[in-house]
Amino acid sequence: MSKIIVLGAGMVGSAMAMDLADQHTVVLADINKERLAYTKHKKEAITIQVLDVNKKKELQDAISDFDLVLCAVPGFLGYETLKAIIEAKKNVIDISFFPEDSLSLHELAIENNVTAIVDIGVAPGMDNLILGRLNEEMTISSFACYVGGLPKIKKWPFNYKAPFSPVDVIEEYTRPARYVENGNLVVKPALSDVELMEFDGIGTLEAFNSDGLRSIIQTMSHIPNMIEKTLRYPGHCEYIRVLKESGFFSEEESLTFNGITTSPLALTSKILFKEWKLGDEEELTVMRVLVEGKQNGKDKRVTYDLLDHYDKKTAISSMSRCTGYTATAAVNMYLNGMWKEKGVFPPELIGKDKDCFNFILEYLFQRGVVYAVTEN
Amino acid sequence: MSKIIVLGAGMVGSAMAMDLADQHTVVLADINKERLAYTKHKKEAITIQVLDVNKKKELQDAISDFDLVLCAVPGFLGYETLKAIIEAKKNVIDISFFPEDSLSLHELAIENNVTAIVDIGVAPGMDNLILGRLNEEMTISSFACYVGGLPKIKKWPFNYKAPFSPVDVIEEYTRPARYVENGNLVVKPALSDVELMEFDGIGTLEAFNSDGLRSIIQTMSHIPNMIEKTLRYPGHCEYIRVLKESGFFSEEESLTFNGITTSPLALTSKILFKEWKLGDEEELTVMRVLVEGKQNGKDKRVTYDLLDHYDKKTAISSMSRCTGYTATAAVNMYLNGMWKEKGVFPPELIGKDKDCFNFILEYLFQRGVVYAVTEN
Repeated sequence: MSKIIVLGAGMVGSAMAMDLADQHTVVLADINKERLAYTKHKKEAITIQVLDVNKKKELQDAISDFDLVLCAVPGFLGYETLKAIIEAKKNVIDISFFPEDSLSLHELAIENNVTAIVDIGVAPGMDNLILGRLNEEMTISSFACYVGGLPKIKKWPFNYKAPFSPVDVIEEYTRPARYVENGNLVVKPALSDVELMEFDGIGTLEAFNSDGLRSIIQTMSHIPNMIEKTLRYPGHCEYIRVLKESGFFSEEESLTFNGITTSPLALTSKILFKEWKLGDEEELTVMRVLVEGKQNGKDKRVTYDLLDHYDKKTAISSMSRCTGYTATAAVNMYLNGMWKEKGVFPPELIGKDKDCFNFILEYLFQRGVVYAVTEN
Repeated sequence: MSKIIVLGAGMVGSAMAMDLADQHTVVLADINKERLAYTKHKKEAITIQVLDVNKKKELQDAISDFDLVLCAVPGFLGYETLKAIIEAKKNVIDISFFPEDSLSLHELAIENNVTAIVDIGVAPGMDNLILGRLNEEMTISSFACYVGGLPKIKKWPFNYKAPFSPVDVIEEYTRPARYVENGNLVVKPALSDVELMEFDGIGTLEAFNSDGLRSIIQTMSHIPNMIEKTLRYPGHCEYIRVLKESGFFSEEESLTFNGITTSPLALTSKILFKEWKLGDEEELTVMRVLVEGKQNGKDKRVTYDLLDHYDKKTAISSMSRCTGYTATAAVNMYLNGMWKEKGVFPPELIGKDKDCFNFILEYLFQRGVVYAVTEN
């Protein structure tokens, strides 16, 4: 039984606090009192605390008494929050998915004798972990990850609800996508190279380029082909491109109302947030990780397939299950003393350790998040 | 040679002033000095005058010395401006296309001994005129008008540039569309009932419901079937519906930023205005008026087809030619003493008079705006 503080009471942070509270003493901290009260109501054992992570001193005071910090703040706050945690010499599991390079904090973590496991959700997260594991077992020539969070009920035109922060969804549609092809880094616009793919239990989905490779571009630079694509119901991408091509995603401060200036993107986000708001409705998470290469001189192809659904009993979303339980698996793995290295570690580095890999998959399996493996 | 004041120096107002200045003394008035200077530069004979039509006294003073007023102000200013002109006892030709019912000013016009010919552009305008004429010659069972202003070069996604005020284009996409079917008034959402139609010299276009019947719902209430549809390049309508269905056309003041509140529609308009801005580029006007019924007991079907292009020589848009020259035809028809009745007259009432009808068609023909008539 350890003392854990969870930063961020969003959908995922809340689900993680509830999961951990069965075995540990858990404090859940957020600036939003309503979110805190909601989680407290669902799980009495959790202690809640109002906290603004932007206030560094307050943040560092708040975490001082804990064995481990689990950080799930919005992406745009992630990097500075993680840095402050490391400077406070606290070990940390992080799923804030900030745009900055987490490995740039590696030396700082070593200096502060800290272990920071980052990006340990579903994607980034499980795809990295799987890649890190298979990289120990075979010579990989290509890695591909296809992933999406989708509503069960499709509503025209976008057939989409955002299972995590809509800001981060729009970021996926605007930030240029990087992939590796024949050893070269290729940069393409997000939403490019739409292809149709079949998934058991769902049907046809469309996959398009998004900037999801993150740390593995550095850590797995010996693999000549690596790509991540986002999955949506067919048609979504075309309609997003309509908005993008006609200026709705422009970040230029070109709109003036009553003397106040703003950008089309700022207002488009507000409209789409409303349209894409995930209510108390069923959604699902779908992921396919495809690794090809050679093992003992023979061609090998390994596929990990995930299809997870909203949990009606607990009203916990599939995205929270798949993302949050991977992180809580890492929390327990770390608290069990299974990972002792100091520094910043994305999951592909954790995946090198077979015991850690198996622990996380087993932890997820116990919670019904099941990866089906095919080898051929 | 008469003295005419043209109110509004927009694309159409400017083209009309230039057309009339060859035969008459013309003053062009607008609140926008740049627009005035632009027209003056193109046609030295025109006198320009800065005028805010919102200031009723100034407006009535400005028009007091003229034989006729030609009103081409934006739609939202149209009704009040026309009312002020009638109250000032000035005869007027109007193409402001305001949303209010112009016939509600009929009694006021009679009291003031004024002739007001309204809606006398291409559509509304020529379609009404044609209907009014054919209604004298046959028993009409159905009237349909298909009309659109389109750019020559199609740019994805909307394949569209607005040949008149984009505010009025968006109005076409939001105001419920009325049509008459088997003698009943039917109201449907704008953009509904999309059908594909073929047009010589263009190819396939899509037609959808828009609220274009206006006065003929009242004046031609004996005709059991009447409909007007707007024409666009295929695909446009679907993408507009994507915006509409996902909240971009909402007029609710639901967006707040920096303390300012606005509506999605206000934002969307600004973005689309930029995307749809008609530059100095070629555009075209296409219209098909289809009238069916009986003449002397036999089935008769009459089609009027218009396909007009941007005039490279004068850099006057096709929409300005088709709309403006219909109105300047009416100006000359009126000044020639061909229409003497007092009151408010939409074109279907003018069309009853064969001489007036022929005069307008001939005037347009001389300017290259040609209606091809097919009877079968």
